[in-house]
Amino acid sequence: MPRYKIVVEYDGSPFVGWQRQDNGPSVQAALEAAISAFTGERTVVCAAGRTDSGVHALGQVAHFDLGCDVDAKTIRDATNFHLRPAPVAVLVAEQVDGAFHARFSATQRHYLYRILNRRSPPAVDRHRVWWVPAQLDAEAMAEAGALLLGRHDLSTFRAALCQASSPVKSIDHLTIVRSGETIAMDIRARSFLHHQVRNIAGTLGLVGRGRWSRNDFEAAVAARDRARGGPTAPACGLYLVAVRYDADVARSPETAALRGVR
Amino acid sequence: MPRYKIVVEYDGSPFVGWQRQDNGPSVQAALEAAISAFTGERTVVCAAGRTDSGVHALGQVAHFDLGCDVDAKTIRDATNFHLRPAPVAVLVAEQVDGAFHARFSATQRHYLYRILNRRSPPAVDRHRVWWVPAQLDAEAMAEAGALLLGRHDLSTFRAALCQASSPVKSIDHLTIVRSGETIAMDIRARSFLHHQVRNIAGTLGLVGRGRWSRNDFEAAVAARDRARGGPTAPACGLYLVAVRYDADVARSPETAALRGVR
Repeated sequence: MPRYKIVVEYDGSPFVGWQRQDNGPSVQAALEAAISAFTGERTVVCAAGRTDSGVHALGQVAHFDLGCDVDAKTIRDATNFHLRPAPVAVLVAEQVDGAFHARFSATQRHYLYRILNRRSPPAVDRHRVWWVPAQLDAEAMAEAGALLLGRHDLSTFRAALCQASSPVKSIDHLTIVRSGETIAMDIRARSFLHHQVRNIAGTLGLVGRGRWSRNDFEAAVAARDRARGGPTAPACGLYLVAVRYDADVARSPETAALRGVR
Repeated sequence: MPRYKIVVEYDGSPFVGWQRQDNGPSVQAALEAAISAFTGERTVVCAAGRTDSGVHALGQVAHFDLGCDVDAKTIRDATNFHLRPAPVAVLVAEQVDGAFHARFSATQRHYLYRILNRRSPPAVDRHRVWWVPAQLDAEAMAEAGALLLGRHDLSTFRAALCQASSPVKSIDHLTIVRSGETIAMDIRARSFLHHQVRNIAGTLGLVGRGRWSRNDFEAAVAARDRARGGPTAPACGLYLVAVRYDADVARSPETAALRGVR
């Protein structure tokens, strides 16, 4: 039974999220229907990260099994053909070893959180950024954010519904950079708590607006209490950029260097 | 009677174009309705460039007159408030001299044409790029495009409905650059013929795919005949980036240098 790995891009706006649900269209159901349309097989597509409603992906990874061998390029092109007009696209498809698991084999997840920081609301990037009209100090946000690098109890940023076994997570990379009116937070870790990136973004927003000092942020983290954290930033600013697996991590000198440190 | 200049961003996807029309929503009508909602006045908003249906703007410029003085920041914020949920935003508003005319005072228009050049269709950038799945040679496109710099009869790129008095136009700047899967054509001129940028992009697409040589492109331009040009590239790849006026042009060293050459 051949297993396929796919890299998927999607605009999360019209979806209830990655996961199939009764209350609306999901990315998973769109992919499963498209694959079924040309293979005649019913299959379950399993993703590295089950993104919430409105969250986008530039490089979500998923896997699924088929009863018969299909050329990987055919998987990519035929799935894309049958996905239309849903804003979901398979970027890469490849046949992988049956031991590969999109979720459990993943060694690093890479997210981007985008803020549009200007007085006027987004037009071209509507539903694709968090609009913050008040002036933000991106350098102050970056300094406070750097406190999260390494291994920490991140209960302050953990959603109540989070199913992770432990609130302790290691953040490999966290940078915050302004480019004109846009502020981008780039964050990478083996795994994340539910709403972790959005809760970090929302809390750093308080630092950016000058309402919280770096010390306030540090104290909120140390409290290990969601009630001490800031608001959850909106889903529309969040992008799952990439998911890495052991071979990829070995190939990436930057990540290898970071891992060498710990 | 005070006159106001506004800089406007919009996602052109849901509109029949800039201009008010009977067959659907226009950017102009959305702005006029929003301004009327807080001023109680009916006014006509006149743009530097009447973009077609599906064409986007990052910096369209327009002007309008009001019967009474309104603070420029109020114009910006109240218009944005009343524009919701249309994907149109006023970025800047300022009171200007009554002699200022968004269309006739403009000295340079700056357009961007974006191509997504990859096998898989766009998802996050759907309706925001021209998707070309066949591999394009951006350097060959740039070399051919450079032939258009300076003053030329551009009848080969002129739509049948074009109302310009002459097909002779001066292109100040034309660059084509690949960045990963995206190819961006940046083009600036005092004024453009109808569909000029889209016809240039579509024709350069033939060069990029290797169907046309640089000589073929040159011969098509020299023919001064629309029938000898390539197809019209789709509206969704086109962005009106900025409109410049005399004072701005004087301020921009890059443009000043280009003008000095001619």
